[in-house]
Amino acid sequence: MNALDIDCALVAEILEGFLRDEILKFGFTKGVVGMSGGIDSTVSAFVAARALGPENVLGLIMPYATSSPDSAGHALLAAQQLGVRTETIEITPQIDAYFARFPDASRLRRANKMARERMTILYDHSVSESALVVGTSNKTEALLGYTTLWGDMASAVNPLGDLYKTQVRQLAAYMGVPQPIIDKAPSADLWDGQTDEGELGFTYADVDRLLYHLIDLRWSGEELVHAGFDATFVGRVKEIVRKSQYKRRLPLIAKISFRSIDRDFRYSRDWGR
Amino acid sequence: MNALDIDCALVAEILEGFLRDEILKFGFTKGVVGMSGGIDSTVSAFVAARALGPENVLGLIMPYATSSPDSAGHALLAAQQLGVRTETIEITPQIDAYFARFPDASRLRRANKMARERMTILYDHSVSESALVVGTSNKTEALLGYTTLWGDMASAVNPLGDLYKTQVRQLAAYMGVPQPIIDKAPSADLWDGQTDEGELGFTYADVDRLLYHLIDLRWSGEELVHAGFDATFVGRVKEIVRKSQYKRRLPLIAKISFRSIDRDFRYSRDWGR
Repeated sequence: MNALDIDCALVAEILEGFLRDEILKFGFTKGVVGMSGGIDSTVSAFVAARALGPENVLGLIMPYATSSPDSAGHALLAAQQLGVRTETIEITPQIDAYFARFPDASRLRRANKMARERMTILYDHSVSESALVVGTSNKTEALLGYTTLWGDMASAVNPLGDLYKTQVRQLAAYMGVPQPIIDKAPSADLWDGQTDEGELGFTYADVDRLLYHLIDLRWSGEELVHAGFDATFVGRVKEIVRKSQYKRRLPLIAKISFRSIDRDFRYSRDWGR
Repeated sequence: MNALDIDCALVAEILEGFLRDEILKFGFTKGVVGMSGGIDSTVSAFVAARALGPENVLGLIMPYATSSPDSAGHALLAAQQLGVRTETIEITPQIDAYFARFPDASRLRRANKMARERMTILYDHSVSESALVVGTSNKTEALLGYTTLWGDMASAVNPLGDLYKTQVRQLAAYMGVPQPIIDKAPSADLWDGQTDEGELGFTYADVDRLLYHLIDLRWSGEELVHAGFDATFVGRVKEIVRKSQYKRRLPLIAKISFRSIDRDFRYSRDWGR
């Protein structure tokens, strides 16, 4: 048995209970999920539909002009299977209106602006639908910082944030996510031929195994190399994790008073409920 | 002496040192600040200009069609006094492109979308300028949740987050912020005649005094009423603070593993530097 193997039935039950509790106790009954057609957001939508009932989930499909039509197609396929309502909102007009001023903007700038535009639309619908935004980020991308701060990282409650990518895949198969979504190469779908693993330079299988031993089991660099992990790979991933720590923190506040937010003034989200 | 009085010279020195350290140690030399023409963002720009040198600060002025021309005028006035560079980027095209689909959207929805659009533009310039985003939220609005989550609350480093609004005012006077900015009524400038205090239903002077005793000194409801605070006001503000706790936390993640982000996997922003 692989160290990353999860008991899918148990994990699905935990995630559904978590999402239901965390939404209901705030007085909400509904969730809104950005559905990209990729495996993460599809699994989030599956968890949400099972936790809240499909009638209480809205899937937002938010393509840009260059997004592959397959992406929206896969999102619709999953939504239909679940019986959740979808709305398609093109982000092209807003994105193009902004970059008309900056025609030479890099791919990175465009990608980040798009991820954040989608966040703003999810939150806008969270108000109009009286729903909470259900997150879709997994633990691998959060640890690698392979994500947009205040973009796809932002949500109210995230059922997937403690699952590595390869664990999301296991859960997808268990929950009955449509096969084309499971089979395709993970991609941010920003340009033709883009894949996560091509950009990262390593596979999710390899990096998840390393992250699990490094983060969850707290193995040292020496122990990892002794167990057969490549020393250069270990060094590189440790550096990536450390350098992206700012994406896993709230803004830093200059401490002046007796009790500062996120320092000595810290309560749980459901404080007082 | 009022309990909220601060030693402005000392606080200014602390904030400038904080901002300089937190930007330089990440390998950056520059900051980008959204300048609304209000007192908070002006004080942030003053701190940034003194911490980094005015040549290393970019002030972004991001009006919407209905923003008062005075607001941009005040931002420019402050920027000229400081000698910091500004760029004006209208958010109207992007906002109108989105709400063309939702013509009946409420003021709240529009206000939140605008605050988040400004965040995305600040972060876009943080990449194009190799600069960190300097925050402008004060402690009063953060505690009251009178702010947009992943909007004006989002930044890399925030020099003002531990100062109550009335303390920001003291610092503004000390630092030489232009008088019209100090004198005008605080407002989100979303419609004509809007003021913070009108919307909140109490003054910053009153609520800051209450928050200081409630949060910093941890006085109980009984102690507060005994000291002369109105019981209804105390109850109302306690409720507002509790109900907005979700705006002061990262997204909640379902715990599955040994070490979950923001739970058992917690490091400072400058971990490993």
